[in-house]
Amino acid sequence: MNNFELYNPVNYIFGKDQVQKLAELVPANAKVLIAYGGGSIFKNGVHEAVTKALKGFEVVEFGGIEPNPHFETLMKAVQLIREQNIDFILAVGGGSVIDGVKFISAAVHYDGDAADILRKRILFKAGAKVIPFGTVLTLPATGSEMNSGAVVTIAATQEKLTLGGSALFPKFSIVDPTVIISLPKRQLQNGVVDAFTHVMEQYLTYPHEAFLQDRFAESILKTLIEIGPNVVENPSDYILASNFVWCATMALNGLIQKGVPSDWATHMIGHELTALYQIDHARTLAIIGPNLYKVMFETKKEKLAQYGKRVWNLSENSVEENAQKAIEKTIEFFHIMGMKTKISENAENIENTAEMVVKRFQERGWNALGERQNITLEKVQEIVEMSY
Amino acid sequence: MNNFELYNPVNYIFGKDQVQKLAELVPANAKVLIAYGGGSIFKNGVHEAVTKALKGFEVVEFGGIEPNPHFETLMKAVQLIREQNIDFILAVGGGSVIDGVKFISAAVHYDGDAADILRKRILFKAGAKVIPFGTVLTLPATGSEMNSGAVVTIAATQEKLTLGGSALFPKFSIVDPTVIISLPKRQLQNGVVDAFTHVMEQYLTYPHEAFLQDRFAESILKTLIEIGPNVVENPSDYILASNFVWCATMALNGLIQKGVPSDWATHMIGHELTALYQIDHARTLAIIGPNLYKVMFETKKEKLAQYGKRVWNLSENSVEENAQKAIEKTIEFFHIMGMKTKISENAENIENTAEMVVKRFQERGWNALGERQNITLEKVQEIVEMSY
Repeated sequence: MNNFELYNPVNYIFGKDQVQKLAELVPANAKVLIAYGGGSIFKNGVHEAVTKALKGFEVVEFGGIEPNPHFETLMKAVQLIREQNIDFILAVGGGSVIDGVKFISAAVHYDGDAADILRKRILFKAGAKVIPFGTVLTLPATGSEMNSGAVVTIAATQEKLTLGGSALFPKFSIVDPTVIISLPKRQLQNGVVDAFTHVMEQYLTYPHEAFLQDRFAESILKTLIEIGPNVVENPSDYILASNFVWCATMALNGLIQKGVPSDWATHMIGHELTALYQIDHARTLAIIGPNLYKVMFETKKEKLAQYGKRVWNLSENSVEENAQKAIEKTIEFFHIMGMKTKISENAENIENTAEMVVKRFQERGWNALGERQNITLEKVQEIVEMSY
Repeated sequence: MNNFELYNPVNYIFGKDQVQKLAELVPANAKVLIAYGGGSIFKNGVHEAVTKALKGFEVVEFGGIEPNPHFETLMKAVQLIREQNIDFILAVGGGSVIDGVKFISAAVHYDGDAADILRKRILFKAGAKVIPFGTVLTLPATGSEMNSGAVVTIAATQEKLTLGGSALFPKFSIVDPTVIISLPKRQLQNGVVDAFTHVMEQYLTYPHEAFLQDRFAESILKTLIEIGPNVVENPSDYILASNFVWCATMALNGLIQKGVPSDWATHMIGHELTALYQIDHARTLAIIGPNLYKVMFETKKEKLAQYGKRVWNLSENSVEENAQKAIEKTIEFFHIMGMKTKISENAENIENTAEMVVKRFQERGWNALGERQNITLEKVQEIVEMSY
């Protein structure tokens, strides 16, 4: 097992009606900025519940944080916080809103060009001066409610970039599984596939000796396979909803990646498909993931076979057959989850996609991706072409 | 799934040679008390490594914290901290030393009789005034390095009592799996069985709908079964050591108990056997656990059968047969781990044990234990008698 540090100080508050605890969780006398997205919180009752719970606090609101949150939008919130002397931010939304708030939190006291936070990957270590924030999750999938990372897009240049560091953990996250009741089926499908792929990125590498992490990863995969198809049909079933939401958090709160290699190339390539064609993030993962396993078959087949045996209960004759079948099972699962696993089913005029993705990687100086850094640009081209 | 709060701010630092990070982890300019146990840290090199890493800090030492740490001993450290104006405590040892330091941390600023912390179960919530502390783990098993609970014995009255609260999490824990190389086989055996039973207390209850927690618990059990018999023979095998130590932490750092019922009656009864006969803690668990499952068979059989199927790969015909066989497999495993699973194999003159245990429970006003509170004192008597 590789050496690791596990530090996750988020106060994660899970269950029905937990939003009532907000008044104890937000620091007394804080002036609070409520940050949100497109306004669904006004329809699903969350805005009302939050406002009620924060009665007595001075509150300012900032709406309009878009999916794949834009640097340009977030900077308006930064300006507002500076002008209004806000002490605390409450992110009310899904991963995009929470990611956006992480950037806002970091940027308020940053000296210099805030775009450098993203472009120069400034790390916000514990103790860095940031605006503290909590979250009320309304759309599970990204795990952002219990980690310190974020993805932000600079719209002007269509750069999708990351930021993070221990100072950017939420102080608390309120996670009420009943919020999924009001979500469109498409978003629920996306959530399951996104969480599933988060696990795969940290698991589907090569055999190693961190036995428990493998089993934890397999536990999340098995649970998502078990509940995924049903929860999108019956989101008001609390058993299904609570397991789904909890899996999504555990998929990306840092635990399963400790001491093990991880890949993330599916995400890197997928981000480009979102940037080029605005394909939903999760749907890009469903397109790229299986083709990446096919192209990288020789170096991933042992782990694919383990995955096939333990997660899909396969018992084919050889490593190769189990690995092959495991990929098929994964595609089948994505189809059941409503994914269309070809780029051409999700976008038009796609003929130069592979070249464009490779070009964008080259511009960033990326020569190879993956847990062995053996997913070269030639392999990337092959993976994307296989995905047409 | 039950509502829950997951909060665990320990900076958990795992791996080889991590003790070098001490100087960054201990607050700058702190006056540090190094607390330890019987002195094994002078033989295994840990004292030297810690002292070297803390070069430049003002350090005071306090040794002699015994297994099942005594209130009376710990109060001497409390006195020392008050006299010497210590800012930070470093617990260097196993669960007893760390548990002892949690009590010391809480007692220094406690107004009134410090024994009340234990007898009145004073909760030290986040923000309570305590002396901050870190740990360097030298003996895995209890999980104390990553939780906020502790068990302390008042020697004068032989009361084994608990304390805890969010203020009593270690600031950091340094966990180097190579420390187990110098441990006697008996302690390694104890460690595996202790960790195993910690999981069972939080898992072996009744079927519920927290699917992921069940799978996480089963993951730890399977890993301990896989590595347990080998790690006690080959503690210098880093693969075995690292998986064992990580399992022991995950067994009791709070994660697997979130949202689910838990039992803990095996521990409650076991504590009395340690108090009466000084039987090693883990060995009392190996004695009591399986007999508790037998006596409570009717209410635990569904979960026993699930455990049998998923952890032991059983495929008997009925719930009852799988459950029965699962208990047998557990006893077999404990025997392989060097446990003697009868009280009479561990102590002498034991004929009135059951009555004595029941009497001690009655004195504390305990009428029933377990996840359904259906382990009555009659059942406790039966469990202990079955264990003779």
